[in-house]
Amino acid sequence: MRLSQLCGKTLREAPADAETDSHRLLVRAGFIRPLLAGVYTYLPLGWRTVHKIEAIIREEMNAAGGQEITMPVLQPRELWAQSGREAAFGPVLFHLRDRREHPLVLAPTAEEVVTALAAVEVRSYRDLPLRLYQIGVKCRDEARPRGGVIRLREFLMKDLYSFDADEAGLEVSLQKMIQAYQNIFRRCGVTVFMIEADPGAIGGTGSREFAAPCAAGEDTMLRCPSGDYAANQETAELRKLPNPPQSDLLPLAEVATPGVKTIAALAQFLGIAESQTLKAVFYTAIYADRQEVVFGVIRGDLDVNEVKLKNKLGCLELRLATDAEVAEVGLVAGSASPLGLQDLKVVADDSITLGANFVAGANKPDTHVRHVNYPRDFGVDILGDIALARPGDLCPRCGQPLEAVRGVEMGHVFKLGTKYSEVFGATFLDKDGVPKPLVMGCYGIGLERLMAVAVEQNHDDKGIVWPPAIAPYQTHLCALGMDNPAVAQAAGQLYAELEAHGLEVLFDDRLESPGVKFNDADLIGLPLRLTVSARTLKVESVEARLRWQKEAMLLPRAEVLAQVQTLLQPAAN
Amino acid sequence: MRLSQLCGKTLREAPADAETDSHRLLVRAGFIRPLLAGVYTYLPLGWRTVHKIEAIIREEMNAAGGQEITMPVLQPRELWAQSGREAAFGPVLFHLRDRREHPLVLAPTAEEVVTALAAVEVRSYRDLPLRLYQIGVKCRDEARPRGGVIRLREFLMKDLYSFDADEAGLEVSLQKMIQAYQNIFRRCGVTVFMIEADPGAIGGTGSREFAAPCAAGEDTMLRCPSGDYAANQETAELRKLPNPPQSDLLPLAEVATPGVKTIAALAQFLGIAESQTLKAVFYTAIYADRQEVVFGVIRGDLDVNEVKLKNKLGCLELRLATDAEVAEVGLVAGSASPLGLQDLKVVADDSITLGANFVAGANKPDTHVRHVNYPRDFGVDILGDIALARPGDLCPRCGQPLEAVRGVEMGHVFKLGTKYSEVFGATFLDKDGVPKPLVMGCYGIGLERLMAVAVEQNHDDKGIVWPPAIAPYQTHLCALGMDNPAVAQAAGQLYAELEAHGLEVLFDDRLESPGVKFNDADLIGLPLRLTVSARTLKVESVEARLRWQKEAMLLPRAEVLAQVQTLLQPAAN
Repeated sequence: MRLSQLCGKTLREAPADAETDSHRLLVRAGFIRPLLAGVYTYLPLGWRTVHKIEAIIREEMNAAGGQEITMPVLQPRELWAQSGREAAFGPVLFHLRDRREHPLVLAPTAEEVVTALAAVEVRSYRDLPLRLYQIGVKCRDEARPRGGVIRLREFLMKDLYSFDADEAGLEVSLQKMIQAYQNIFRRCGVTVFMIEADPGAIGGTGSREFAAPCAAGEDTMLRCPSGDYAANQETAELRKLPNPPQSDLLPLAEVATPGVKTIAALAQFLGIAESQTLKAVFYTAIYADRQEVVFGVIRGDLDVNEVKLKNKLGCLELRLATDAEVAEVGLVAGSASPLGLQDLKVVADDSITLGANFVAGANKPDTHVRHVNYPRDFGVDILGDIALARPGDLCPRCGQPLEAVRGVEMGHVFKLGTKYSEVFGATFLDKDGVPKPLVMGCYGIGLERLMAVAVEQNHDDKGIVWPPAIAPYQTHLCALGMDNPAVAQAAGQLYAELEAHGLEVLFDDRLESPGVKFNDADLIGLPLRLTVSARTLKVESVEARLRWQKEAMLLPRAEVLAQVQTLLQPAAN
Repeated sequence: MRLSQLCGKTLREAPADAETDSHRLLVRAGFIRPLLAGVYTYLPLGWRTVHKIEAIIREEMNAAGGQEITMPVLQPRELWAQSGREAAFGPVLFHLRDRREHPLVLAPTAEEVVTALAAVEVRSYRDLPLRLYQIGVKCRDEARPRGGVIRLREFLMKDLYSFDADEAGLEVSLQKMIQAYQNIFRRCGVTVFMIEADPGAIGGTGSREFAAPCAAGEDTMLRCPSGDYAANQETAELRKLPNPPQSDLLPLAEVATPGVKTIAALAQFLGIAESQTLKAVFYTAIYADRQEVVFGVIRGDLDVNEVKLKNKLGCLELRLATDAEVAEVGLVAGSASPLGLQDLKVVADDSITLGANFVAGANKPDTHVRHVNYPRDFGVDILGDIALARPGDLCPRCGQPLEAVRGVEMGHVFKLGTKYSEVFGATFLDKDGVPKPLVMGCYGIGLERLMAVAVEQNHDDKGIVWPPAIAPYQTHLCALGMDNPAVAQAAGQLYAELEAHGLEVLFDDRLESPGVKFNDADLIGLPLRLTVSARTLKVESVEARLRWQKEAMLLPRAEVLAQVQTLLQPAAN
């Protein structure tokens, strides 16, 4: 491709709203252009990279036994009513009506459609395992599209759905997908680590997330430096140390705590460790049919993880209760107590069992109670892990302090089990002739996000440094002095020769200065830059530089083709 | 691919609503499944064929200087208000709003978006010509989706937009596209002819349509048996013969015509040719801001073409006026007259100039007027060609009678000129430094429709006969008697050998009868069927049959690979 004819000029200025490196660089280098918030047009360079990512994903999906299909963007809303996910997706789901007022949604994902399909196409255990995937447009009306093409409202997604006869089969499918995902990220030059994640609105359990560490990440991951554990902070576990043992459960005793409103102040006032106190937190849990105030209680040195709490409650949304809501259920904020509660759901973190004789609120202003013990003094409705893991908290596996890493979610694998197949009647006849629900998994990767994160992880201050397999072209041929007929002819010949041998070449045939050309080459970031100039002609050579190396080398003209093929060989992976 | 694992079983019964062969066959052979009216899921076989069509189109677009980009499905409605096309598309346009109530539409085509893009990316005549294309999802809320995947509400379209400096450049782009389209249809095994067509809501002039003759066609094309002319009936021209010459324009004279209401009755009553009469027709023309009754007049032997009339009027919609509307403007249906009209727009076909002394209505019941002459006796507001060409009418080029053919529109090329570039300020600096509007063309092909028409034109009573280049696989390998270990082993070996040499093989490894297997092979319609059975093993051979031939042949086992490669060679085009 001749750069003089390429649609998509390089820009000196990044968009004013760009907050991430990939956003700035992909716009400046002429890969993408915005149409709407979170909706982009892909110019030829950008589209070539997305297309290469697509080809890599397709290869790996086929190798893992995937069969490619394609399902529509327009989906009947009825299917979402049937699965009950309309509420879970909320405003993220785009709604519309056709000319006959039939309600439709734009596909954000395809569990409903594919399960309804499997209900028809799968008949017997002999049809299993079945792994169906598609690579196509998805729409999600995200509240905050961001980072250029990191979080989009319209994007390309590869979504694979596995159907197995049982849990053991699902585990095989899951492991194949995990391996395929690792291959994909490696081939695309993206470093990821696999973490445990919250299944979110997709539902199901056994969810794993592939997270790519980078500055543009908006998710906080916690990982153990030993490498034995990593998780999204939303779901991360932590080792909770027990308090020092106490021989007796002492009797309850009120203590005046004038002006003391926080755990820190309480511990300081009484001269005790924060872990010797109980913290009360109030949330309003919103269900499809009602909402209620929930009393959360956790050891004072820990914080509540709202995602864990929400999952424990099974509610649609969760928010901190307002002062008015707290007062209405008869509690005193700042000194609320789990003691003597009635008609209020209590959810407690299991840390309250790792100690004795805690100090808790008295439900009276300026007063607390000593020697509170569970279950002697109060009951709970739900007891479990609702604690937020923080950097410095201990690894649940080995006990080393966890580190925080910023990361972008790159792919998700979910065990769905029979959640959807039961709703849509997707059964198969087992060997004994008995109909059983299909056991499902789902596995997604966003293509544009993969491109963006490849840039986040592979760039310098001059521009992008494309991983060779997903570079839009492999070679950037700069002709310096196109007004010199000898240069124009030599560069044109080299261009033709490289293309004739199947190499992908972007040929900068413009009448521009060496500075402009080299800056554009660095910005666009193809793996290999070749330069033809009056100077290189004199020594019958071509200058070559790999984008990630500082030094250029001179290749004798007669050897250029062979050398270029050698230099670019790793790109064939 | 092993047929035992393939998603998408063959069906004995076609869908009850299927009216076309391609609909019946693509569903029965397991290529497509409906999700909504005009919205389909593509199963693995169907998707492979669509994907092959996509690859052929991409190759031809690139060869014609196209640069591939991709534009979003979600488009801001503002762009459509700006171009003024929202009304022209009417209910075909899917509307929706995002969570911030921003109005969006789903892309039915992309003139607006691509012109707004070119307004930014194209700066100088040096950037021209520019040909941008995409292959992606389009949505059109058609009133009557039909024919399986012939007319869809969601479909894949290749749309290319050309930008040139002037009309001469546009003509070059148009000719390149016409050549590319001819290559695409040929490679996909589809016979088309190029016709003149109505530009419809896209606008512009110089529109050509590629029409594929087939029984499922809903458009009527007229073509000259000499091959010098073909057109959609909507826009077809015809040669209008003049009436026999008359020496004098005679004076007007009323004639009583009791009970005579039609042209046929009038001609019979007076003993004259229908071409000696004038026919009056009344339409209500609907504009964005008003509607009005229009008086149409045409020679009695001809009929009005409503598409031509609508284009002449430039109205949004046109319908026959009701009796009440006719009476309201003071006309007498059955004997309406162009004489003495006031405040009524008159549109006349130019056939009224090809004769003299016509008989026309008198605007009184049971009365007509003889010797009516234009322009002596009445005026018209618009005079031009509004006549409907019918089978048997004469070719405008050579005068031979035109024949009617049923056809499906397969592709469209439009000269848009500066219609969009002026609206969106898409200019370039010419050599003299003067900004000028880009001269545009647009060129579309529907991918699924191409698949469907390939089936319409290539099938027999047993199933599909795929054109080799777009068959989902090239070879259908039938193993007869998979419970015979020798057969299973021999067939498995052949399958592995063919695949190792890059051949695409669908391996029927099921435990089914020869009848079931052969019927499925005929239905699915791959070019080459190979059969391994106890009988062929005995003679150390494999049976081979090309789908379009009756006779099978025996290939010696040692020669199978070479012979298969030879037999399938044409598929490489």
